[in-house]
Amino acid sequence: MKRKGLLVAMAGLVLILAGCGNLKSTGSGTSTTTTNSSKGVQTTGSTGESNYTGVIQDGSYKTSAARGLMVSQTDNVLNVKSMETGLTTISKKEFSTDKYLLQEGQYLKSATVKKWLARKSKSNPTGLNPKSNGSTDADKRTPLYLQQILEQDYVTQTDNNKSVKLGGVSIALGMNTVDYYQKERYGAEYKTTISDSELLAQGKSMANTVLKRLRQNSDLKNVPIVIAIYKQAAKDSLVGGVYVAYSANKASATTVTDWKNLDEKNQVLPTVGDEKAVNSGDSDAFSNFKSQIQGFFPNLAGVVAQTHYEDNQLQGMNITINTQFYGETEITSFTQYVSQAAGRYLPSNIPIEITVQSTQGIQAFVARESGEKSFYTHVFSSY
Amino acid sequence: MKRKGLLVAMAGLVLILAGCGNLKSTGSGTSTTTTNSSKGVQTTGSTGESNYTGVIQDGSYKTSAARGLMVSQTDNVLNVKSMETGLTTISKKEFSTDKYLLQEGQYLKSATVKKWLARKSKSNPTGLNPKSNGSTDADKRTPLYLQQILEQDYVTQTDNNKSVKLGGVSIALGMNTVDYYQKERYGAEYKTTISDSELLAQGKSMANTVLKRLRQNSDLKNVPIVIAIYKQAAKDSLVGGVYVAYSANKASATTVTDWKNLDEKNQVLPTVGDEKAVNSGDSDAFSNFKSQIQGFFPNLAGVVAQTHYEDNQLQGMNITINTQFYGETEITSFTQYVSQAAGRYLPSNIPIEITVQSTQGIQAFVARESGEKSFYTHVFSSY
Repeated sequence: MKRKGLLVAMAGLVLILAGCGNLKSTGSGTSTTTTNSSKGVQTTGSTGESNYTGVIQDGSYKTSAARGLMVSQTDNVLNVKSMETGLTTISKKEFSTDKYLLQEGQYLKSATVKKWLARKSKSNPTGLNPKSNGSTDADKRTPLYLQQILEQDYVTQTDNNKSVKLGGVSIALGMNTVDYYQKERYGAEYKTTISDSELLAQGKSMANTVLKRLRQNSDLKNVPIVIAIYKQAAKDSLVGGVYVAYSANKASATTVTDWKNLDEKNQVLPTVGDEKAVNSGDSDAFSNFKSQIQGFFPNLAGVVAQTHYEDNQLQGMNITINTQFYGETEITSFTQYVSQAAGRYLPSNIPIEITVQSTQGIQAFVARESGEKSFYTHVFSSY
Repeated sequence: MKRKGLLVAMAGLVLILAGCGNLKSTGSGTSTTTTNSSKGVQTTGSTGESNYTGVIQDGSYKTSAARGLMVSQTDNVLNVKSMETGLTTISKKEFSTDKYLLQEGQYLKSATVKKWLARKSKSNPTGLNPKSNGSTDADKRTPLYLQQILEQDYVTQTDNNKSVKLGGVSIALGMNTVDYYQKERYGAEYKTTISDSELLAQGKSMANTVLKRLRQNSDLKNVPIVIAIYKQAAKDSLVGGVYVAYSANKASATTVTDWKNLDEKNQVLPTVGDEKAVNSGDSDAFSNFKSQIQGFFPNLAGVVAQTHYEDNQLQGMNITINTQFYGETEITSFTQYVSQAAGRYLPSNIPIEITVQSTQGIQAFVARESGEKSFYTHVFSSY
């Protein structure tokens, strides 16, 4: 879920209030939906019309049943973030943000997911990855195709807003483009590369199996289930992966009959070597921005952007500026300058996030949210 | 300089444009003052009426002549930031932000400052710290009183805005509350504590010397010079130091005749041990906020606030929330919740900055700028 227009305008917010105590308005922009009672269902509050509201049950946030499993399984942490935000984005097509609340996955338990992610074997009959064929040759062995499974639940409010009811489930299958393996424990790392077509075929086949299995749970028998195929980025990538296809399965359907292909690309700017820019206009714009701000300060270590494309249209840009700063005055002046240069050189009408980093962490932050025209700037301060 | 109202409303911005090329407006909020020409004087653009605009000369930002000296000399990096922002705040009383631009110190050279900071001796006659009396006993030795010197220049525009002219100088003397020393190289660390009255007396005496010396530079002979005394925080402090006094010296004055005392306090909340809260109402408000958000997630590692008081009035709060997050959905929900709790529990009418940190760095950011009523929230994203 991309954070959009977060100036906390709360249009369309679904309020769920249980046992309201002293509810109090907190200003022009923020809507308060917390209550003094910790019983029943509350919400986290949304941060904009196009974002989901979260669920708080009996005073605590409901974490995912398989929480923490992904990171340990995945070498590139960028995949985790982009897989989650991407699944939320796809889910919006099926579960509208003003009707559904987002709750982390509660049905796939950690133990189940572990088994599904492992290879199929006599002792692990539910493994979704293929049996080993015994080969350790990169081109002959059977790779691990599936690396991550992510569940998101979309719930609606019932019982006079006192409880929630499952309205649908979204599942992402995170597929490897590169499967890293070792021939012996603690040995050198080898890799098997998986083609896009193989990745897609394996993902679709697994999606069918997953759908059938989910339908065996009585809670999931009769709700729409979205299954999306995520193509993980390689371990050394500076951007996360992208979604390649998804299917929206009607309540009670046990076979995936309809796939929609997605054309998403992530690219790091400046491009290196002979990599071609997805869009040379965007790439040039970024180059101009980069030289402008590098002229300003003598020692900027690096200016790098992550870009995201859907159907070859730029959807957003995250820029990281690494530098060594000594003082608050420098940071402040630089941030003012960056905000100007961003407005002047960077593509318009897309969300842009710029962070100024030093070895001591983030120093400043400049952003234009989706739909906004001006940049918000903030220099992190300290007393 | 505290970042205030940074929604880039540019009221009162002083535009300095030299050899304007294709100047282009960039939207409703951002004013562009950069030019294609790199000759002459430009500005960084301000970010609000109450902030100084920076100076760009011949295409590059003018860094301080003594740049980089402070950090290496100072153990607690918090002192560096708060000393700089504090000096800018004091300077605003003498050099109005709509008339003066801020330029980093250009007159005190690195070599000069090094000599001034060292002990006075035969080989270093300009040392501002006293000669060693030979003792290594914590209570008998002569400590190093002065730890840092900071210069800020305030300039005005001349020559049809094509160049700048010095309008005034602000100097901060960073005084030790604790002087850390070793009896032998690589030996154990000992400390001499310096009382507030001794710190102030030493600072005032040094200020006189510094003023006289600055007047010997022909450029500084006839400009107002502000000298402020900064009381450094101890090495293990979680907040920086505060200013205790300042003097505004008229052009050509060679003796400091008038000191104004400042009553500033920084405090970390929650207080530890038997430390008394500067203001129990603020402390209680923070405690309520803290328990509210700690109820939300099972594993928040720490919620800590820096507070700043002037004349016992809360001026602002910087809150750091450390936690271990696994996914984007959790961070998003948590950030929504934090923003609500902040609006409900934290003191109103002061700037508040909240950062949500994990081991992977900053995850989200919630802030209410000075004069604003609602909170801006941003979850850092990744493609």
